Amino acid sequence: MSEEFYVTPWEVRGKVDYRKLLEKFGAKELDVDVVNRLGSMAGEVHYLIRRGFFYAHRDFDKILEVAGRGLPWALYTGRGPSGPVHIGHLVPWILAKWFVDRFGVELFFQMTDDEKFLDDEEATLKETNGYAYENSLDLIALGFPQDKLHIIIDTEDIGVLYKIALKVAKKLTWSAVRATFGFSDSTNTGLIFFPSLQIAVAFLPTELRGETVHVLIPAAIDQDPYFRLARDIAETLGYPKPATLYSRFISSLRGESKMSASVAESAIYTTDDERSIRVKIMNAFTGGQPTAELQRKFGGNPDICPVYEYHKLFDPNDKNIGEIYENCRGGHILCGECKALLFDKIKSFLKIHVEAREKARDKIHMYRLSAKLR
Amino acid sequence: MSEEFYVTPWEVRGKVDYRKLLEKFGAKELDVDVVNRLGSMAGEVHYLIRRGFFYAHRDFDKILEVAGRGLPWALYTGRGPSGPVHIGHLVPWILAKWFVDRFGVELFFQMTDDEKFLDDEEATLKETNGYAYENSLDLIALGFPQDKLHIIIDTEDIGVLYKIALKVAKKLTWSAVRATFGFSDSTNTGLIFFPSLQIAVAFLPTELRGETVHVLIPAAIDQDPYFRLARDIAETLGYPKPATLYSRFISSLRGESKMSASVAESAIYTTDDERSIRVKIMNAFTGGQPTAELQRKFGGNPDICPVYEYHKLFDPNDKNIGEIYENCRGGHILCGECKALLFDKIKSFLKIHVEAREKARDKIHMYRLSAKLR
Repeated sequence: MSEEFYVTPWEVRGKVDYRKLLEKFGAKELDVDVVNRLGSMAGEVHYLIRRGFFYAHRDFDKILEVAGRGLPWALYTGRGPSGPVHIGHLVPWILAKWFVDRFGVELFFQMTDDEKFLDDEEATLKETNGYAYENSLDLIALGFPQDKLHIIIDTEDIGVLYKIALKVAKKLTWSAVRATFGFSDSTNTGLIFFPSLQIAVAFLPTELRGETVHVLIPAAIDQDPYFRLARDIAETLGYPKPATLYSRFISSLRGESKMSASVAESAIYTTDDERSIRVKIMNAFTGGQPTAELQRKFGGNPDICPVYEYHKLFDPNDKNIGEIYENCRGGHILCGECKALLFDKIKSFLKIHVEAREKARDKIHMYRLSAKLR
Repeated sequence: MSEEFYVTPWEVRGKVDYRKLLEKFGAKELDVDVVNRLGSMAGEVHYLIRRGFFYAHRDFDKILEVAGRGLPWALYTGRGPSGPVHIGHLVPWILAKWFVDRFGVELFFQMTDDEKFLDDEEATLKETNGYAYENSLDLIALGFPQDKLHIIIDTEDIGVLYKIALKVAKKLTWSAVRATFGFSDSTNTGLIFFPSLQIAVAFLPTELRGETVHVLIPAAIDQDPYFRLARDIAETLGYPKPATLYSRFISSLRGESKMSASVAESAIYTTDDERSIRVKIMNAFTGGQPTAELQRKFGGNPDICPVYEYHKLFDPNDKNIGEIYENCRGGHILCGECKALLFDKIKSFLKIHVEAREKARDKIHMYRLSAKLR
């Protein structure tokens, strides 16, 4: 990995060079052909792909081929429930929802409350399991049909995954996971086993259906090590290689490469009150000039600005986005005005979201895979 | 470890020096005081303890103290279902049954079909899981009351153990399990996690009862590494340190230190037919002289003789055992006669056992812990 940045599933440091990261990992950039093919099949290209937020993949073109031939496929993604959900977490879920709606496929969603317990010295199982439930509310709130979203909470639903995970674990040696994840002598044996559980879900749809079900995994690029290993062993275990669709990280409001759920000011939580959200947005780092006068004279730099990035993530309207970009570049809008616009968008989004989230509270069990299999 | 013998949970090589092994592991030999105390509490000392087959322990005296004070305690032992059960496997289960009867305690019994799958390149989950069921028949056949025997089949009952295992795994680093079990770079990540599952059962009674339940583990001495680790971490996790009672290995009929389930001639399976049992016993290695004439003149050596050992394991009558010993030493009995005596004993034992085993076939679910917890 380059010395300027460092990316693992547990840590992102420095200014990420997404091209270099792809080279390092060996995944492919999304090209025009595959994006156009998606557009012609789905009737549109989702704005998160169109705007390059999802920018790379492994075999996404094969999934489109599978879909075109009417063969079964499913989506898989997940979340490490280490705290409340921030709006950045919702972004890939929004794309997953789009795939569910456009292609009628099912989404298997893994809450890794085991991993988050194992990874944090201070965490208790009660806490991470509690967050698994709380975070499920945010997922359900996005409007998934009950029969299309299957939530797996690792510590409670291990029975669904364990036999598959054993087959995976038998193929993964210590030296393989050490090399892939940078494990050391002091890594605990729970974390050493965990990759097999994250990989197991990629093979679960095939086990459940009793026939080959291809799987597409939309995820942030830091999750690639898991799925690289999954692809290495899939076929020897009789499963199709999972395909992936990778996003960039969402910048923190303070300008770092990745939002951190553990630094409260760097992210907007879905459970934040309006006042906190306003304060966080108003205090955000921007690509603007130090003074209003300089901004009007030289314009700002939206390409490095998290406020602009958030506009792109939460406003599907390309015209709005284009205007903000040009107005910033041309100095026609000040950062304060731009932040106020963003605040209104996030506020509207969260108003609907929070209502839906509360309504989901009594319905979580309806989305649990284990309950459906009983 | 001495160069003459080598003992791990997966392999026993060479002529085992049981004293040296204790020193190496750091467990204690059973002394007269603790054996007498057991006798006064139980009304007798079981012949497997009296004859030194169970010869060592960790904190067995504390279990007697707990029992004496009327505090809750339970038994835990298990089996790696890698094949059919041979009569050697029954020996510690016979002792466990005695504890259940004499002290009214419950036995938690773990079938590690996961470990046996992970440990053997050729094994399939279907095979090891099938043996878990088959081996359960042999266990139930010994006559455990349904409310005192709780069988856990790892691959199916993982949900009962997983949260406890996670707490254990978080405390066990790679360097700890590598040092304890001799793991290497090529050890698979399933086996690396597995010790946490074997340890978890030691803490399960306390979790289930919601109060401190002490645990006594009767097991072969090669299992000590697991329980040493369990004892190291028990108290930081809020559980009592498990106590252990260790047996020697049962010699193979060919004279090696340990019977092997994978060498058919070395062991008598509970499912063997009478003819095979006769052939195996008649072909057994003995401590006798090369000819009848020399045997009558010099006598045999029962102390190195597996046939004599099997008499001791399956005949509770001390007078019989004493006579065999003296008659062998004095040259009054030939190996063929002694083998015929043993064959009769094993035949009688297995006649009852096999009947009970078949009757157990429809009742396994009644003994499954997961079914009881549902």
